[in-house]
Amino acid sequence: MEPDSTRKVYDGSLLHLVVEQWGPRTREIVESPNAVAIVAVDDDGYLNLVRQAREAVRRELLELPAGGIEPPETPLDCAKRELREETGLTGGIWRHRAGFFTVPGFGRERMELFYAEDMERGEPSPVADESFEHVRIPVSDIPSLLPELEDAKTLVGLLPYLRDSGRS
Amino acid sequence: MEPDSTRKVYDGSLLHLVVEQWGPRTREIVESPNAVAIVAVDDDGYLNLVRQAREAVRRELLELPAGGIEPPETPLDCAKRELREETGLTGGIWRHRAGFFTVPGFGRERMELFYAEDMERGEPSPVADESFEHVRIPVSDIPSLLPELEDAKTLVGLLPYLRDSGRS
Repeated sequence: MEPDSTRKVYDGSLLHLVVEQWGPRTREIVESPNAVAIVAVDDDGYLNLVRQAREAVRRELLELPAGGIEPPETPLDCAKRELREETGLTGGIWRHRAGFFTVPGFGRERMELFYAEDMERGEPSPVADESFEHVRIPVSDIPSLLPELEDAKTLVGLLPYLRDSGRS
Repeated sequence: MEPDSTRKVYDGSLLHLVVEQWGPRTREIVESPNAVAIVAVDDDGYLNLVRQAREAVRRELLELPAGGIEPPETPLDCAKRELREETGLTGGIWRHRAGFFTVPGFGRERMELFYAEDMERGEPSPVADESFEHVRIPVSDIPSLLPELEDAKTLVGLLPYLRDSGRS
């Protein structure tokens, strides 16, 4: 699949917007960095989440640790970096679980989902531009937490985790 | 939560882009219509999906029927309209299951998820700008379908459906 033409209409610091012509169809498309999200369980059996101010939607959301890939790092390198920065977790056993498109109707973003288990605890080192709270929850409490989650990637990550672990 | 300032940098037909200042933080934010997605099961026990060309990600994806809300219609009105247009399904029993933000890191879009069961079959009436194929799958085949799904909203919709229906 290739467009007939592509025109960049906004060139920002994180986001870029292009208008593509596909035969009779005109498509406005957001370009943003590809990303990762991590279902991280530490060696005490706690799921590690972050509560973060999300300016775009005017509220704080409870989410999986996640972030944008900074080439040339691989998705796995990015996931380990983001998890260390946001929660202090290191080591552990890593597995790639899924890849998906977050908003294929208007954006290119692809997200890779990792499971990280038996992680060792340490000190977070948040970057200056972000403000968030590190939240730890016993894995057995995930089902009762689901109704209050409003972030798509967090739902995409935790629902298969419950299936895989037989906790659903 | 309110920004110190907002500046519109792109005003398109479907997408708009604003740059907001929140104290020291600058945020580029995509404004797009809020949306709905539907887990639709017909009276023969088939899940109804659509296979759709997604220009933004350069491939065809298998997805839940979905679409943008056209005010003043309500989310439920929108869901019934989109499902009728894309699959021909009408009637049935409707339930709102969840609401979530698709890309809260950079976009305002909120999506409402509906379950529609015992739907009556009819003729789709696709709008001219869209090209897609209507795909019916026995509900019992959903678990084996999951690994090939790459659309976030479809995963968010089907995973709780499996939990709720005890098929996980």
